[in-house]
Amino acid sequence: MKKKYDYIVVGAGSAGVRFARLMATKGYKVCILEKSRVGGTCVIRGCVPKKLYVYASNFKDYFSDATSFGWRISKEPTHNWSKLFSSKNKEITRLNKIYIKNLERVGVTIIQEEGSFYNSNSIVLKKSKKIISAKKFIISTGSTPSMPNIPGRELAINSDQFFEMKKIPKNISIVGSGYIALEFAFLLKNLNYNVNLIVRKKTILNEFDKDIGTKILQSAIRKKINIYDESSVQSLTKKGKSIVVVTNKKKITTNLVIFATGRVPCIQSLGLEKSKVKLTKHGAIKVNALSQTSNKNIFALGDVTNRKNLTPVAIREAVYLVNYLTTKKKQTLNYDKIASGIFTQPEVGHIGLGENDLQKRSINYKILQTEFKPLKYAFSNKNNPVFIKVLYQPKTEKIFGIIYIGESAAEIIQSLAISFAKTFTLNDLRNTVPVHPTSSEELVTLV
Amino acid sequence: MKKKYDYIVVGAGSAGVRFARLMATKGYKVCILEKSRVGGTCVIRGCVPKKLYVYASNFKDYFSDATSFGWRISKEPTHNWSKLFSSKNKEITRLNKIYIKNLERVGVTIIQEEGSFYNSNSIVLKKSKKIISAKKFIISTGSTPSMPNIPGRELAINSDQFFEMKKIPKNISIVGSGYIALEFAFLLKNLNYNVNLIVRKKTILNEFDKDIGTKILQSAIRKKINIYDESSVQSLTKKGKSIVVVTNKKKITTNLVIFATGRVPCIQSLGLEKSKVKLTKHGAIKVNALSQTSNKNIFALGDVTNRKNLTPVAIREAVYLVNYLTTKKKQTLNYDKIASGIFTQPEVGHIGLGENDLQKRSINYKILQTEFKPLKYAFSNKNNPVFIKVLYQPKTEKIFGIIYIGESAAEIIQSLAISFAKTFTLNDLRNTVPVHPTSSEELVTLV
Repeated sequence: MKKKYDYIVVGAGSAGVRFARLMATKGYKVCILEKSRVGGTCVIRGCVPKKLYVYASNFKDYFSDATSFGWRISKEPTHNWSKLFSSKNKEITRLNKIYIKNLERVGVTIIQEEGSFYNSNSIVLKKSKKIISAKKFIISTGSTPSMPNIPGRELAINSDQFFEMKKIPKNISIVGSGYIALEFAFLLKNLNYNVNLIVRKKTILNEFDKDIGTKILQSAIRKKINIYDESSVQSLTKKGKSIVVVTNKKKITTNLVIFATGRVPCIQSLGLEKSKVKLTKHGAIKVNALSQTSNKNIFALGDVTNRKNLTPVAIREAVYLVNYLTTKKKQTLNYDKIASGIFTQPEVGHIGLGENDLQKRSINYKILQTEFKPLKYAFSNKNNPVFIKVLYQPKTEKIFGIIYIGESAAEIIQSLAISFAKTFTLNDLRNTVPVHPTSSEELVTLV
Repeated sequence: MKKKYDYIVVGAGSAGVRFARLMATKGYKVCILEKSRVGGTCVIRGCVPKKLYVYASNFKDYFSDATSFGWRISKEPTHNWSKLFSSKNKEITRLNKIYIKNLERVGVTIIQEEGSFYNSNSIVLKKSKKIISAKKFIISTGSTPSMPNIPGRELAINSDQFFEMKKIPKNISIVGSGYIALEFAFLLKNLNYNVNLIVRKKTILNEFDKDIGTKILQSAIRKKINIYDESSVQSLTKKGKSIVVVTNKKKITTNLVIFATGRVPCIQSLGLEKSKVKLTKHGAIKVNALSQTSNKNIFALGDVTNRKNLTPVAIREAVYLVNYLTTKKKQTLNYDKIASGIFTQPEVGHIGLGENDLQKRSINYKILQTEFKPLKYAFSNKNNPVFIKVLYQPKTEKIFGIIYIGESAAEIIQSLAISFAKTFTLNDLRNTVPVHPTSSEELVTLV
């Protein structure tokens, strides 16, 4: 039996859901397929649960900070992971239901099944074997954690699985040097777990400006996260209740191994070979600036295209595609002007280009930077500096990028992003009257 | 004995110190008079000690928030005021020394004495009776708390005296509805004191957009601050160790009364009658846009001019005056575009014009606003909404003002201030890709 939709959306994550909702609101007949839960990585196993865990972990620092301000806490507070886990799940379920309700309210058909292209005009559903067709297709299947092919890999878990852990043991090893690995390392350390971080190079967060990695590594060391650098994992073996991680340098005995070693686009079971959709050499779906694939009736949004893998980017791609399909308005996103946060301790906010990007593009730049002890730590012996770095074009003083490391960094960079979308120069910083006393005022007194 | 300076600066607060330092750096002979400690209201008895107390008080909320994230705190933490007080004093002394050192390093003569105009070219020092003269004078004596003339007023203290309190009793009454009164009320309540807030009207924070007052009053009530509204204080009387506050409605028995009922420019002992410096009808020193008084050789900066009484404004006025005096560059400040924060719980950040200002000027406006439960309170039954309000011109969508009430509000508004200095429209918010998950992203998804 054939069923005709205007749009079939494959994958109900941030991009797919936004596209489906907007199109259905405009009167189109839309069907969305989802093999797992509606909401995608961000809601179910990414941004939202991660940030809830980070909030939980921040309190550890607050407890010790409080004592420098005259508070007396008679006994070291203890943390109950299971309670946090079940609160997190309750919240995710609540959000999941809202997503489904919002889709249903505007008449989107939700099919909770996996589908793959039958030909370039239709999709076959894996379980029910039904074939459904549409005028156009949207692939928004996102990305999935990738794990190295080493002996014993089945003893480890990935980030998706970590969010399903109801109980966790005291000694945890994280393999990876990207932001997911670092966020996990800090939040677990602050929740009183013993954390080993196993990284391949001497540096971490290598995709960002080097100062981000340097400052966060310094903080990880201060927090007594055990760093195993220049270490590549060779194998995992079970030893009683423990797991032995064998690296090129050491054997590390641990109770849980989490691989946070990158993510790959989810294209495995889509039957793309039947759809005339081409891939990039890195295995992502190849799209033009309007999110169109090599098949003019098939579009792809979000992580599956591996452009800038962030929730708000996926949503913006969806909105722009809706505008293009309904009004022919060609809006394109400037991927160099997108802000984002890393929820380590301290938090990182950054926008625009870092030194790594500028060097790669052979762009001439200058730097203004400061590191200072914020008023909040005036009474403390802790070394929790705030770090601010501004990269700019020497002649025009046009700002290429800003890095802010410290409390509320993501909230601060969010507001700065508004200025950044415009022509943004050092003079804009110079002319702003600061708000006193704040930490971000250093941004405007720096110049 | 006469001594000839290029500039005599009266008052070593934010404006005076900045002016003196910059001028001395440029090679001028500068003398600064200060009857109290160097640093002014901001450093000694305002922004800095206030914010340190606010930081201390915030932990109370963190303790209760922590439990919703799985933390167990076996016994209610207690707070030691004296410890906070002495840490605060240590920090203020440290800052005070830095200020003095910075002045001395560039060769500013610091005279720790009170002075008043002897004639329009010279100043007589009160104690030493010396007369000193200069080519030009800067009055930067700031403002001082004003207290109502009621029977028993000597039993109460003002905000300056509050910062000198080494010990404080359990039951405290604060008279006033401005931001100082409210900041004190919240910080003391959170440090476990019983707080009565006595206000004249039914509303508070009446100088700001009405929603600021409404939201903060709601929070004060939730926090169980005892609000005595429509109450004007008639008298104070001593009753044993207590003080009885008699209002038009009630008698309130308390242990400490703090008046936060406004501030007045510090001009009392300046001998202005001998200087040809005129006052406004509200008793502030009258200046033009270049901070020049009615005597062309005398300038006034900061709170004593009662323009916008904020530290960074005073500093900016000082910088602009230095530029004018040394390069004839005429820079003027747009007092409508200055951001500021109120450190209540929740925090308030605001910039530009509020509804009150727009109505007063008969400007046509529209509002976009939202109130939402931030992710941080997902697990909590507490009602701690974030409130965002954007006021704009209907046709052009030019933004007149923004209010943000919630955690990190001051840091967020600081960064927004940079956009605000430019032509800032709703479209700028619309076009910004948000940072997820943050609270301030609602600013850009609101439109």
